[in-house]
Amino acid sequence: MSASPGQPLSGIRVLDLTQIYQGPYAAFLMAMAGAEVIKIEPPGGERMRGAGGAETPMAFAMLNSNKKSLVLDLKKSDGKSLFMRLVKEADVLLENFAVGTMDRLELGWEVLKKHNPKLIYASGTGYGLSGPDADLLAMDHTVQAAGGIMWATGDEGQPPIRAGGAPCDIMSGTHMYAGVLTALFARDRQARGTRVEVSMLETMYFTLSSEYTALKRTGSIPDRNSRRTPGGAYPYGTYQCRDGWLALICVSEAQWVRITRAICKPEWGEDPRFSSAKLRGIGAGEVDAGIASWASQRTVAEAFARMRELRVPVSPARSIEEVRDDPHMHQRGMLRRMQDDDLGEVVLPASPIQYSEYQRTELKTFPRMGEHSREVLVSWLGISETELDQLSKDRVI
Amino acid sequence: MSASPGQPLSGIRVLDLTQIYQGPYAAFLMAMAGAEVIKIEPPGGERMRGAGGAETPMAFAMLNSNKKSLVLDLKKSDGKSLFMRLVKEADVLLENFAVGTMDRLELGWEVLKKHNPKLIYASGTGYGLSGPDADLLAMDHTVQAAGGIMWATGDEGQPPIRAGGAPCDIMSGTHMYAGVLTALFARDRQARGTRVEVSMLETMYFTLSSEYTALKRTGSIPDRNSRRTPGGAYPYGTYQCRDGWLALICVSEAQWVRITRAICKPEWGEDPRFSSAKLRGIGAGEVDAGIASWASQRTVAEAFARMRELRVPVSPARSIEEVRDDPHMHQRGMLRRMQDDDLGEVVLPASPIQYSEYQRTELKTFPRMGEHSREVLVSWLGISETELDQLSKDRVI
Repeated sequence: MSASPGQPLSGIRVLDLTQIYQGPYAAFLMAMAGAEVIKIEPPGGERMRGAGGAETPMAFAMLNSNKKSLVLDLKKSDGKSLFMRLVKEADVLLENFAVGTMDRLELGWEVLKKHNPKLIYASGTGYGLSGPDADLLAMDHTVQAAGGIMWATGDEGQPPIRAGGAPCDIMSGTHMYAGVLTALFARDRQARGTRVEVSMLETMYFTLSSEYTALKRTGSIPDRNSRRTPGGAYPYGTYQCRDGWLALICVSEAQWVRITRAICKPEWGEDPRFSSAKLRGIGAGEVDAGIASWASQRTVAEAFARMRELRVPVSPARSIEEVRDDPHMHQRGMLRRMQDDDLGEVVLPASPIQYSEYQRTELKTFPRMGEHSREVLVSWLGISETELDQLSKDRVI
Repeated sequence: MSASPGQPLSGIRVLDLTQIYQGPYAAFLMAMAGAEVIKIEPPGGERMRGAGGAETPMAFAMLNSNKKSLVLDLKKSDGKSLFMRLVKEADVLLENFAVGTMDRLELGWEVLKKHNPKLIYASGTGYGLSGPDADLLAMDHTVQAAGGIMWATGDEGQPPIRAGGAPCDIMSGTHMYAGVLTALFARDRQARGTRVEVSMLETMYFTLSSEYTALKRTGSIPDRNSRRTPGGAYPYGTYQCRDGWLALICVSEAQWVRITRAICKPEWGEDPRFSSAKLRGIGAGEVDAGIASWASQRTVAEAFARMRELRVPVSPARSIEEVRDDPHMHQRGMLRRMQDDDLGEVVLPASPIQYSEYQRTELKTFPRMGEHSREVLVSWLGISETELDQLSKDRVI
């Protein structure tokens, strides 16, 4: 069973050795673009499977749709030699072990590139493959600290706090996918494989663009501010309504005039005290109080509808349940309600990248551990049933 | 002057109509991979240039390295016809205007694909090109609210707050770049252009993977927690030292034992009350107090060095100044100290994607407005000096 023809990555074969969030997201994006992605798992399965079955974490389901699972013991010599045969047939290998692990397994880039010079070998790391901090262990939480994200989250005089979710994992996973595609594109034209390297730390640098602007402009580190970044836009905040919170930002004078109409303060639209973002920032207390008072008398839905009607950038601060059930994303096919044999009804995300001239890939729920071991070894390597039985008996697969 | 040979995207021509952070980051990644990226700016320049000169925002400098600037008035018919000639020579077009803007300029995908059927036309949007919310204006701040990021940031019983920086802009810009490369790869094999579409909202979905795991497991929305995500790891937090904060996470039993040694509580390593992450979570108060007490008696540097030595995932919560001056990233070539004619000494980031078999692209500071207008029109279209003078006089370029 090969990837469906006519998808952007039809015919591309991927060995996915990754775990947790970063690497699996890169591999997920490949699978959703039509590549054949073989998730290679150690006996016992990738650690994110947890207890498995009905206990499989939702994150595992989300990140492993449309992949095939092959269990392979890379610590056994038969497992290693099977793996080397697979590498010969592969276009891409993805790994995000701690730096040095693949070398210790004798499966590092220097070894594999001799075996398959056109291979794209992608390493997802915390701090990169070189430099004084290359050996540091990294998780999203610690990289948020190392990258200044924590520093920028929270409020002046309060401790630095983590941003919700795992942005460093997903950001670096996306760069990992992007790097692989860049390398694949170049391989077709320049006939060489390459190692691709991304570090979680480095992929977060640009998220603090506004903060670096303020640092350069003032020479001092801007204060943490939980309601806005240190840019010039004003108003810019999150306002409490009767039943929740509304985020709002004003980035043009036309929007400001429309906001004054929405909050029933049309006179402010012509008030010279408020005639630029900078001046509004100076009179921030009054502006914020005006919006806050207006918001406090309305439901989020009412306040949102009014601002939306007036073309102001605005959004309710939605709960993750509201996001998961968002009619907009369901209608667009980004989110799909599916039935999984173990998990029951689940909402699964597709790829957030769409192509007008390619059909969206049909979503398939995550593979059970080893579900495709035999199928892959037959279709990639032509291994016989007798051999498969022996490998299985020897606990290599 | 074409892109240097031997880079992954050598020979690829890009028209970059984007602004602010999202699209410019996608175009920056293309330029740093060796593509020739022409930043097409309206008369007056892209809005992020601000007052320009020494007042140019640092973010603009960071996001526009290695691009060329062509000023072109797309609202004039001569400007439009020049643009159409450029489109014919281009591989990629990037735009992130409000949905519908390019169509109103008669420069939408449906028009341009007839003109250049092999074009990759990428649209960076807030909510996507379809669906009931496609018309919503979007900025990073409001998308954090719409995507559940705000909801997940902060603490129980406190308001939802924004994550520091502009993660939605950069996350979607990275997906935009990734989508373009996927489409370019497929174009070489399948001989067709395509429109590529990403939405800020959708690219943030996977960052909340841990939160969706908790929602599925418990059936209820997990509380905001500024120190940890709702996963099973424990300890997991940010601890105050004498002169700052240390982020720490424990993801294995071996790490736990090493942590107990670091904090001089080796007996906890054998204590059945703490023999799993779950049990440690139940005794969280005692565990946290033990680490907090240890941390409070040390500097960040001391606490960090000790945990690092014991192979625990740990990091100081660094300020953005510390991040900018990080010796590790400078040594790796990710950050470079450069001299800019207008801004003086600046630290500029390179691409966070590295390739072992390609040289890292030399970093060039951002183009001044219109700096390459004539050069590009000559090299791409062979326009004569007389014509250029006329276009300049007519304020088309």
